[in-house]
Amino acid sequence: MSEIAWNRYGKAAVRLMKVDRSASSDVVTELTIDVRLEGDFEAVYEGDNSACIATDTMKNTVYGLAREAPIGSAEAFASRIADHFIRRPAVRQVRVSAIEHIWTRIGAHPHAFVRSGGEQWTAAVERTSASTIVRAGIGNLIALKTADSAFSGFPRDRFTTLPDTDDRLLATAMSAEWTYAPGFADYAVRERVKAALLEAFAAHRSQSVQHTLAAMGRAALDAAAGIVDITLTLPNRHHLLVDLKPFGLDNPNEVFVPTDAPYGVIEATIRR
Amino acid sequence: MSEIAWNRYGKAAVRLMKVDRSASSDVVTELTIDVRLEGDFEAVYEGDNSACIATDTMKNTVYGLAREAPIGSAEAFASRIADHFIRRPAVRQVRVSAIEHIWTRIGAHPHAFVRSGGEQWTAAVERTSASTIVRAGIGNLIALKTADSAFSGFPRDRFTTLPDTDDRLLATAMSAEWTYAPGFADYAVRERVKAALLEAFAAHRSQSVQHTLAAMGRAALDAAAGIVDITLTLPNRHHLLVDLKPFGLDNPNEVFVPTDAPYGVIEATIRR
Amino acid sequence: MSEIAWNRYGKAAVRLMKVDRSASSDVVTELTIDVRLEGDFEAVYEGDNSACIATDTMKNTVYGLAREAPIGSAEAFASRIADHFIRRPAVRQVRVSAIEHIWTRIGAHPHAFVRSGGEQWTAAVERTSASTIVRAGIGNLIALKTADSAFSGFPRDRFTTLPDTDDRLLATAMSAEWTYAPGFADYAVRERVKAALLEAFAAHRSQSVQHTLAAMGRAALDAAAGIVDITLTLPNRHHLLVDLKPFGLDNPNEVFVPTDAPYGVIEATIRR
Amino acid sequence: MSEIAWNRYGKAAVRLMKVDRSASSDVVTELTIDVRLEGDFEAVYEGDNSACIATDTMKNTVYGLAREAPIGSAEAFASRIADHFIRRPAVRQVRVSAIEHIWTRIGAHPHAFVRSGGEQWTAAVERTSASTIVRAGIGNLIALKTADSAFSGFPRDRFTTLPDTDDRLLATAMSAEWTYAPGFADYAVRERVKAALLEAFAAHRSQSVQHTLAAMGRAALDAAAGIVDITLTLPNRHHLLVDLKPFGLDNPNEVFVPTDAPYGVIEATIRR
Repeated sequence: MSEIAWNRYGKAAVRLMKVDRSASSDVVTELTIDVRLEGDFEAVYEGDNSACIATDTMKNTVYGLAREAPIGSAEAFASRIADHFIRRPAVRQVRVSAIEHIWTRIGAHPHAFVRSGGEQWTAAVERTSASTIVRAGIGNLIALKTADSAFSGFPRDRFTTLPDTDDRLLATAMSAEWTYAPGFADYAVRERVKAALLEAFAAHRSQSVQHTLAAMGRAALDAAAGIVDITLTLPNRHHLLVDLKPFGLDNPNEVFVPTDAPYGVIEATIRR
Repeated sequence: MSEIAWNRYGKAAVRLMKVDRSASSDVVTELTIDVRLEGDFEAVYEGDNSACIATDTMKNTVYGLAREAPIGSAEAFASRIADHFIRRPAVRQVRVSAIEHIWTRIGAHPHAFVRSGGEQWTAAVERTSASTIVRAGIGNLIALKTADSAFSGFPRDRFTTLPDTDDRLLATAMSAEWTYAPGFADYAVRERVKAALLEAFAAHRSQSVQHTLAAMGRAALDAAAGIVDITLTLPNRHHLLVDLKPFGLDNPNEVFVPTDAPYGVIEATIRR
Repeated sequence: MSEIAWNRYGKAAVRLMKVDRSASSDVVTELTIDVRLEGDFEAVYEGDNSACIATDTMKNTVYGLAREAPIGSAEAFASRIADHFIRRPAVRQVRVSAIEHIWTRIGAHPHAFVRSGGEQWTAAVERTSASTIVRAGIGNLIALKTADSAFSGFPRDRFTTLPDTDDRLLATAMSAEWTYAPGFADYAVRERVKAALLEAFAAHRSQSVQHTLAAMGRAALDAAAGIVDITLTLPNRHHLLVDLKPFGLDNPNEVFVPTDAPYGVIEATIRR
Repeated sequence: MSEIAWNRYGKAAVRLMKVDRSASSDVVTELTIDVRLEGDFEAVYEGDNSACIATDTMKNTVYGLAREAPIGSAEAFASRIADHFIRRPAVRQVRVSAIEHIWTRIGAHPHAFVRSGGEQWTAAVERTSASTIVRAGIGNLIALKTADSAFSGFPRDRFTTLPDTDDRLLATAMSAEWTYAPGFADYAVRERVKAALLEAFAAHRSQSVQHTLAAMGRAALDAAAGIVDITLTLPNRHHLLVDLKPFGLDNPNEVFVPTDAPYGVIEATIRR
């Protein structure tokens, strides 16, 4: 005998571009949206589809809701989608997540845009009939320090070969996700959060990635009162100093090999 | 004021190739390994590294342990790594995951191999001082049914346009992860699990992806007594029937467009 | 003043799945197709579209032609598409390329399939009104030798640190593209070409990647009389022997780090 | 009998980060470099390595040359590498290409940087003993127009279903590569080229992608006298207007689905 111990389903990678033509200059919003439902769907697994909202309907709903009202922000639009689905029979929990691809106007042109940066904005809403949690974040924000980064005093065992250093390159492709206080909806604070993360990264005298992560998380909480916690994930993209001695050359911390694998990864949640 | 509410760190993407040259024909094992630690590491976030096992040491440990004994299997090797780190001070939980890249001998050649399939084998060990949980899995197993797949009887609302169908293509790039019973170590059952999943996929008269997922999960549990649960993730890689009527042609379920986005995604855990 | 010195356009990534239901067991063919045209299209660049076959029409044509006759093979279907477009006004050259994603029947099930291997079959047809050149190939065929691979005797300068070796791992993700003799159409030889390439790779006592590439190319020409030349591209996916001495361990050619970057790349065309 | 009809080899994906610490604020340059040689290497294919410069030596050379002098620019550094290898025996042609990953200072911090944009700068040098050709370019520059883009008047046949339109979204991830006049070395013009490409894209009243491509190419040539030609590749990233009528909604050019496949691709070289 066996049972369905847990289940979830939905539509992933619903791609949406909305052009707001209501002013003299267009505004474009591009989102990739993911809708997931949990609820009383066990019968579907036995072949009874009477409760199974088609994932095709989820996709259509995203486009319909996009037309019916302004997007506003990724957080607000994800909330609208979650509100729609939580009212459907059998649904007990909705999770809507969105990635926002940011466009910047080309000069003063009212109808032309260029994709800015490689980083992504994210939003995620978890909705039950009783509660709504709204999170937002940044992904793939790539940053580098060429000074003020040390790593020493760590424990040594037979497998430890890394020397203590007080001057290494520190590079990361960070992601951050923070939780808004219930009812807080000034989602424009995300620019302030990003600025605080970068400023703290740049200014910190780092003893480790963990040390810098904590400084960044605190700076983000300080910058935006509406945030209750922030989770930071900092891959350590190692840059190896090249040994140039065989060529009769020194290498005073100048020439490095950026590497992809392996990489350290440091994650923590800082809570107010 | 703020606090570190949660933290974890480790080394990701440690790549290992081991050649066992002890017999007349070589045996090769290729793994990509990820080590993550949780424990009493809060001081690290304040700049004190005395408890912070360097992730570089984690990488070295993988290579040292690979040399000291045979790999055995991805599950067994991940367990050995977890056993090593759980004994270190400050560590309260170790998670080691591994992806195995499978090689097949070329003909009867003792020293030549070709990469088999696009699917991956995975192993994951969660270790505390009190318990060990071993999971294994398959990723990216791509399968397709050209008959015996229906989807009808689902609820309709104003955003529903999908017609009922009793004859659609069903394609997926499935992943599965199952949990071994405590102490069970016959990891060779994974071939039986894979065979059971594919056979169930092929033979099932599907009313929905959920319906087929449940049949597959039950078949896997039936095939391998040492497994206590299995989680299946089945993206629904939609194949859209092309409308050929504008060209004066019919299309009796023959010509389809495979699509990547959006896609449905169905996940469930089946427990014995 | 300026001029259009060269131009080409077309539709890329047209994805097609055809199910042949004419026998008791279905046969599925999945292709990703790319159509490119060259010709008298200069006026299009001045804003006159009267000669500009829409790339949307190219896509529709692929689906229409797929319905009207059996696919046959990637080579034959690409040829049919090229024949269609070369007859259109303004077109002087057509290039159609196709990637075939291979499916294998699951057991004896007439309607269920699994994606085989990670390698891809390719076909490319270049068509003018006067000539047709048909090429076929394999991409991403990943192979490994654990013996019979040396590299020594190469020139040394101040930047050379690589030691001579008579026993290294040789790994590659090869691609091959061969040209069929005019009129030759027995495209099933590609299985023989693949087998010859792998057998030569496995059996060769390699002095360098170049040395093995030549042996493979000759083996392919020997295996298939209808082929006039073959171009092989062999990335050298370096596997670095791990230095375990700091841990008090030897490493008798057993424990390696597979690396992605940098990589050597060796390309050559062998002509009959 | 068979012969080596053509051959080339080298090292790809050599990753380099150089930190220039000579001023109060650091300057960082990150490049991914590819070196390819052609020449009298046929004997290598027979197992004689006496002329075969090891690709490992190529990698070392990149790092050594990076230390010995300032990088200057991707174009200048690629030229230095090419000059080094063209003087080696057996070498008849060197091609060095580089991708530059651009970093921007964080505020006024002298040692902290953030990766700018998603686009890449490229450089490519082709060197023989008699000549040097230097090219530079931009890759993955993503741009969008929400007005002033039409496509009509194209030929119609039985496979044509695309309606004429005078108002579509035009989106592209352009790449450009231009050739510098012999001896021209003011590589800083690339910022002017980029600005001219974007301005032309934004301002153009487009009758087709080809039409806009030509305008962009001419604008680039006008902006930088040292450039003799420019090749532009413009994928047409189709944005499909969603049909909202089934939901009782209109869609006045507001809600679109961005798509990845298939895509149009338009390429041309504009020569002064």
